[in-house]
Amino acid sequence: MQVAIIGGTGEEGFGLALRLGKAGHQVVIGSRSEEKGASSAENAREILGGTADVAGTTNEAAAGGCEVMFVTVPFGGQADIYRALKEHVRPGTIVCDTTSPLATAVGGKAWHVIRPWHGSAAEQAAAILQTGVRMTAGFHTISADALRAIDVPMDSDVLVCGDDAEAKAVVGGLIEDIPDMRWVDCGLLSQARIAESMTALLISVNRQYKIHDSGFRITGRDGWGRPVG
Amino acid sequence: MQVAIIGGTGEEGFGLALRLGKAGHQVVIGSRSEEKGASSAENAREILGGTADVAGTTNEAAAGGCEVMFVTVPFGGQADIYRALKEHVRPGTIVCDTTSPLATAVGGKAWHVIRPWHGSAAEQAAAILQTGVRMTAGFHTISADALRAIDVPMDSDVLVCGDDAEAKAVVGGLIEDIPDMRWVDCGLLSQARIAESMTALLISVNRQYKIHDSGFRITGRDGWGRPVG
Repeated sequence: MQVAIIGGTGEEGFGLALRLGKAGHQVVIGSRSEEKGASSAENAREILGGTADVAGTTNEAAAGGCEVMFVTVPFGGQADIYRALKEHVRPGTIVCDTTSPLATAVGGKAWHVIRPWHGSAAEQAAAILQTGVRMTAGFHTISADALRAIDVPMDSDVLVCGDDAEAKAVVGGLIEDIPDMRWVDCGLLSQARIAESMTALLISVNRQYKIHDSGFRITGRDGWGRPVG
Repeated sequence: MQVAIIGGTGEEGFGLALRLGKAGHQVVIGSRSEEKGASSAENAREILGGTADVAGTTNEAAAGGCEVMFVTVPFGGQADIYRALKEHVRPGTIVCDTTSPLATAVGGKAWHVIRPWHGSAAEQAAAILQTGVRMTAGFHTISADALRAIDVPMDSDVLVCGDDAEAKAVVGGLIEDIPDMRWVDCGLLSQARIAESMTALLISVNRQYKIHDSGFRITGRDGWGRPVG
């Protein structure tokens, strides 16, 4: 599958690019600068070796040529980046926003969140892109360190929110291609208001225990993935 | 340990009373009505059998005679109950608020939350009780069904928030007495703003999969409990 990672030179985005590249997908790392995107992709190909299909370019070019686009940018620049992407994204593109509105965006603490006007960062993104794209949200609670340790199976689940069940299942299919990673359908896009804030809770847990990669597994069922019926 | 469960006739509170009674603690179930408290305690003793030490009385009497008090009431009545308890709680009592501000309190959906003026239900409780009690928050993400199935080990972790590390450790000790239940120190009491909202996310997950008892395990460490150093 053709996957773009907007902001893919950042820690979370680069980790995701590695994992999806390793799984055999055609990954394009987008960056504000074409050179940085290309350099990051070269780095990814070196790490992955062999036939990994990872390229790098601008965010706009990456967004215009993919089936699924992950947006992994800090909340402080998220709205600007979506506005810049808007005219490049093709209708029908599935978008997965991974942004958490941490208070660091306004000089606050990483274990605090601020409340976007639209309720969540994902709903803000949907409001900017408007119709034609299929918006989902996920990966808020997935540690960048864990994603980048590509030889270690994942030990946390992705909370996926969205109003389009089919789009969630496509994103979920990519998640299932990452070893031991599962996805849980958390309901409508507005539930991202909760899922996004959970990043800050994990940062608080990390502080308490002096670790970097706490995460969540969801219990109550043996398997998750697409709900039946 | 002498433990009071305020609102202990409700599903979550009754489940917690069963688990802590089974673990050998001296449990008092509090209710708005002394008769209902007593009847619920009788029910608990029948379920637990043997020497289980579970009594029932009014919320006020239960609050006045305990070392640790769990408050398991719906958000709609939470402030009134704390105001009624205020003059009965002894200085130094450790309080664990389990309330989630679900939108059902104002006629909304159980998978939506409202925002209490103080930030969280737990901070509202602390503002009402004021000084002298040691406030913590936890159990928001623990299914009442799972608590009540006393022969089944727990499969979810308790997110404990609070400004008093010692008080969190005392609550944590009670949690560790419940088979396979762990507690994670999530930081200051204000982090309950996030932990409380996670109840609504689990209710949304339950709706998607038509289940009743989803929960969270925290990953990233083999063990949790009291942070060292």
